Amino acid sequence: MTQPVTVAPGTPIHLKDFDAGYCPEKFSRDDGEDALKDNAKKLADLGYRLYAENRRSLLLVLQGMDTAGKDGTIRSMMRGFNPQSCQVTSFKVPSEEERDHGFLWRIHRAMPRHGNIAIFNRSHYEDVLVVKVDRLAPPHEIASRYDRINEFEQMVTESRTTIVKCFLHISHEEQRERLQARLDNPNKRWKFSRGDLDKRKQWEDYVAVYEDALTRCNTHHAPWHIIPSDRKWYRNYVISRILVETLEGMNPQFPPAEDDLDGITVE
Amino acid sequence: MTQPVTVAPGTPIHLKDFDAGYCPEKFSRDDGEDALKDNAKKLADLGYRLYAENRRSLLLVLQGMDTAGKDGTIRSMMRGFNPQSCQVTSFKVPSEEERDHGFLWRIHRAMPRHGNIAIFNRSHYEDVLVVKVDRLAPPHEIASRYDRINEFEQMVTESRTTIVKCFLHISHEEQRERLQARLDNPNKRWKFSRGDLDKRKQWEDYVAVYEDALTRCNTHHAPWHIIPSDRKWYRNYVISRILVETLEGMNPQFPPAEDDLDGITVE
Repeated sequence: MTQPVTVAPGTPIHLKDFDAGYCPEKFSRDDGEDALKDNAKKLADLGYRLYAENRRSLLLVLQGMDTAGKDGTIRSMMRGFNPQSCQVTSFKVPSEEERDHGFLWRIHRAMPRHGNIAIFNRSHYEDVLVVKVDRLAPPHEIASRYDRINEFEQMVTESRTTIVKCFLHISHEEQRERLQARLDNPNKRWKFSRGDLDKRKQWEDYVAVYEDALTRCNTHHAPWHIIPSDRKWYRNYVISRILVETLEGMNPQFPPAEDDLDGITVE
Repeated sequence: MTQPVTVAPGTPIHLKDFDAGYCPEKFSRDDGEDALKDNAKKLADLGYRLYAENRRSLLLVLQGMDTAGKDGTIRSMMRGFNPQSCQVTSFKVPSEEERDHGFLWRIHRAMPRHGNIAIFNRSHYEDVLVVKVDRLAPPHEIASRYDRINEFEQMVTESRTTIVKCFLHISHEEQRERLQARLDNPNKRWKFSRGDLDKRKQWEDYVAVYEDALTRCNTHHAPWHIIPSDRKWYRNYVISRILVETLEGMNPQFPPAEDDLDGITVE
């Protein structure tokens, strides 16, 4: 049985139906790493064509529980993309200036320009996730945000930005192992905070708000992909495959060269 | 004879004294590529420490004639750096908004935050290079910019940003070959414009303004490095070496972990 990565819009998404450790039978780590290398080459070429065409853009949104692998995914995808036409934005706790605007203000500012690719490490979805769990905004305001997000994503799509949204799905046990590893590695311990353990206690709350967000914002123009992420190599392979398929579908073209360049010799 | 990459501040810089095709005897392309790989690993580690320390930052400024290899250098350095803490800014013809501010406004906005690395593809130096050759500002205004640049760079250094400025030095003949290759490669021809040939005719004018800028803005706090760039592999190796030396000199440290994390077991 092959596990799907997308669900038809309108269908409720229950995360327990998706195995975070999934990987197809007879698809080994070596297979995945070879395919990832091939895909990185394709992404380099497709990204270059997108940049040359300078008419459309691509947005990759990454969401997931703590330690789900957003940073690792970004490092992996950037092996293919040219850093000059691909910008990564990390959305942290909003600054005072950001809080003085609507929640989509900082998101809009970070959208990719034509020809470019943007990667969001967290995104506007935090405004219906952590904000909901920690009750950082009035409930009626949060309730209306799903519609605002869908409308925003539709507008962006119509201005020729293709949106790829990936939820990096890890299991509760995998998160335990990754947090413990962070504690036990002297070069990573500085990143560890007791707050990480408090957040882990909210796991079920986060599952609930994620299911809500994934279900309500799973649209035709910007569907959610549920990426089995307990195995890092499989996660990277699947996301690279989705990006290759998306960009191949967009099929960006080199613009025409200036007329009459044939036979010019540079002196 | 080893060719130096820096010159004592105050000494006039004449580009003809620097061989753009230089490479030490008995240092092969394989040697360079092996050393570059080692350096990329070191840069990954040093960049991670800089990010963790979150107190200082690094700015790499790249300047050079057309086709000198600024894009290729950036791709090469980004193999080491984490794209989430390293931002590349390409300074193109200023926008209307940028023109409505002083020439250092857009530069200051692109400076790296603490813990980060910024790479500038072209920079504030364009305001004493193309602007001077094409007479885009009054001469007295351009004349005062060298001082403004030195003051700005000193201020930035004092706010704990280390500046590494590299001039990618190619020969006139090497540029000819690279422009011709661009014309002859169907996937690159879209980038070619007849304007490139007009600019090539201004080669000697550019040599003169570059020598002026390199000499007058070669300071103790932000020296210029003259990188032999006819051989791409040697260029990449030399710049990676300078970055490793600079970051090793900064010696960034992991911040202390929270107290009493020993023996915690994640549940």
